[in-house]
Amino acid sequence: MCTDVPFKQPMPETVATRTYPIEQLRAFAERIFRHCGVPEAEARQATDVLAAADLRGIDSHGIARLRAYYGMLTQGRINPKPKPAIVRETLSTATFDGDNGLGLVVGPQANRIAMDKAEQVGSGWVGVCNTNHFGIAGYYVLEALQRELIGLAMTNSSVIVTPLWGAERMLGTNPLAIAFPGHEEPPIVIDMATSVVPFGKIEIAQRKKAPIPLGWAIDAQGYPTTDPDAVVEGGAQLTLGSDREHGGHKGYGLSAMVDILSGVLSGANWGPFAPPFAVGEAVPARSVGKGIGHFFGAWRIDAFIDPDEFKRQIDDWIRTFRATKPAPGTDGPLIPGDPERAAEAVRRTEGIPLLMPVVEDLRFLAKETGIPFE
Amino acid sequence: MCTDVPFKQPMPETVATRTYPIEQLRAFAERIFRHCGVPEAEARQATDVLAAADLRGIDSHGIARLRAYYGMLTQGRINPKPKPAIVRETLSTATFDGDNGLGLVVGPQANRIAMDKAEQVGSGWVGVCNTNHFGIAGYYVLEALQRELIGLAMTNSSVIVTPLWGAERMLGTNPLAIAFPGHEEPPIVIDMATSVVPFGKIEIAQRKKAPIPLGWAIDAQGYPTTDPDAVVEGGAQLTLGSDREHGGHKGYGLSAMVDILSGVLSGANWGPFAPPFAVGEAVPARSVGKGIGHFFGAWRIDAFIDPDEFKRQIDDWIRTFRATKPAPGTDGPLIPGDPERAAEAVRRTEGIPLLMPVVEDLRFLAKETGIPFE
Repeated sequence: MCTDVPFKQPMPETVATRTYPIEQLRAFAERIFRHCGVPEAEARQATDVLAAADLRGIDSHGIARLRAYYGMLTQGRINPKPKPAIVRETLSTATFDGDNGLGLVVGPQANRIAMDKAEQVGSGWVGVCNTNHFGIAGYYVLEALQRELIGLAMTNSSVIVTPLWGAERMLGTNPLAIAFPGHEEPPIVIDMATSVVPFGKIEIAQRKKAPIPLGWAIDAQGYPTTDPDAVVEGGAQLTLGSDREHGGHKGYGLSAMVDILSGVLSGANWGPFAPPFAVGEAVPARSVGKGIGHFFGAWRIDAFIDPDEFKRQIDDWIRTFRATKPAPGTDGPLIPGDPERAAEAVRRTEGIPLLMPVVEDLRFLAKETGIPFE
Repeated sequence: MCTDVPFKQPMPETVATRTYPIEQLRAFAERIFRHCGVPEAEARQATDVLAAADLRGIDSHGIARLRAYYGMLTQGRINPKPKPAIVRETLSTATFDGDNGLGLVVGPQANRIAMDKAEQVGSGWVGVCNTNHFGIAGYYVLEALQRELIGLAMTNSSVIVTPLWGAERMLGTNPLAIAFPGHEEPPIVIDMATSVVPFGKIEIAQRKKAPIPLGWAIDAQGYPTTDPDAVVEGGAQLTLGSDREHGGHKGYGLSAMVDILSGVLSGANWGPFAPPFAVGEAVPARSVGKGIGHFFGAWRIDAFIDPDEFKRQIDDWIRTFRATKPAPGTDGPLIPGDPERAAEAVRRTEGIPLLMPVVEDLRFLAKETGIPFE
């Protein structure tokens, strides 16, 4: 249930798009990463994570970011050939230094360590420092499902969100994801930013010159605003819950949890010191750690309960919640992961609709690198 | 940052209260538990958890519940002398059957198992089934702090909350808590229900015949309501985020996560099948597991990073966030745990203010048992 995903309809806005088969986007992305010096297996891994986002309808985290990754790699702000290493370890935990590699590569490596440890001692936990943007958090917990594990993934990110009662950017959108396998039913996949909405929704409103709802953001003075320009120009997004009356302090608490587990515990930068994932933005003057941070966990289901029994209960959970009496004007509750799965079913056959500015970015990369796109 | 805690002022409503020293309440509660057949050490343990709630200002989870515990014990719905047991175990995990004991006793035992495992292998995780209401989630993570661990605690609970787009009660307020130690600064303590507000806030509005804000709840037909009576009479509370536009699906996702980790993974009841914690309410006709469920976790800090370095960084985090530019009309962001710590400082010296209906409950118990209260 990532915030980037419209809940009922595949595309919430009527905007110009152009549709490409996933294989074409995948092949192009892989060649771009290779062009930047990323070794073959790692380029394929990075592409896998991006493709997962595009397939699942989380457009902001897929190939739309390729130009940013390219820029960071070519400007030397991301190491294309890192040598990540475990720097501290127990039977069920590790701290992993990503050597400033792509989060799309370092993240999956760290996640595998967490999963290996879970298989060995029941649960595994890996904090990652010295890393970069890792794509969608959901990717990592889907990987865990393939190994019959319950996965948990989180990351901190560069500032755009204010804590409740603040008037400046201090936190990232700091997502977390967790997934549970069913037996006959598809898995429950929770994948959510701890801000009310993703920044992309504010950008869309800005392009359309449309107001945003109250409760999404504040302006540069800290006042609630419905003007997307005011958010972009020095304002900040709000945490889940929005205001005090509706639990904005809880969203702040969740965001703080993600920031501390990902950033502080691993020795990465935290809060306002997380370096931005954009070539145009300056790195914060003060550094309190290395890169940004992720945090991965995995539990073996049979460490707690018979896995078949667990999956049957999850099927029952899903069917029970689907049968909830619907609120007026709705078809009733969805199960977390439904919208992404629906998007993937369509996109695997019909292709990935890219916004025209994204298409322009890819054409720019094609021109820069000589790698054909269309 | 529990929802029961007013954020700035110690008492949000002007209501009649009577103040008692914590020692007096503690002695009374312990004798009541003893009277119900709870062994001495367990009665003291249960009282400790209740007292923590009263001291921290989370009035709904303290001695205000003593009459409910008494009723459940005397009616045989809670086992006063349980023999809880580990039913499945790995190096870093366990499933604990609470033998239908008091959650206030079973919870701390399970939490200690999680902490022991963390000390041994870096992290420890314990799912608990066949248990009952465990008090404040914050209690358990404060225990972890005393052993230099990062604790995580959650529990499912009886139905009062609807998933987004539902029109009936399907989930509990399903809280989670986590805490991080500082060096010179007090710890960061996040303790929050995954509903917008605790049920107690709706009850207070009902007593005052005051409207509740939109976004807290729906009526029995599933329409948003400002009428607290409509919530109590068959309506339901909303999850954090309230509506789709403000991320209500995320609060639902978090509540589902707590329900599944606590209930499904341990073999307890989940969702609408969680038995109620009230003698007057019928147990759901269908049972899908044993009792309700809790989930405890603990990480050794030195399994990831030098603990002194971690605590210095947490101090820095706290000071950095305290220095956030304040939103207009506020003193700026608080640190999670501030309100509870402030309440405790006052209440340790000035006593615990109890609402008159709570005082009447305690007088009732005194009369029933012959144990003097005042």
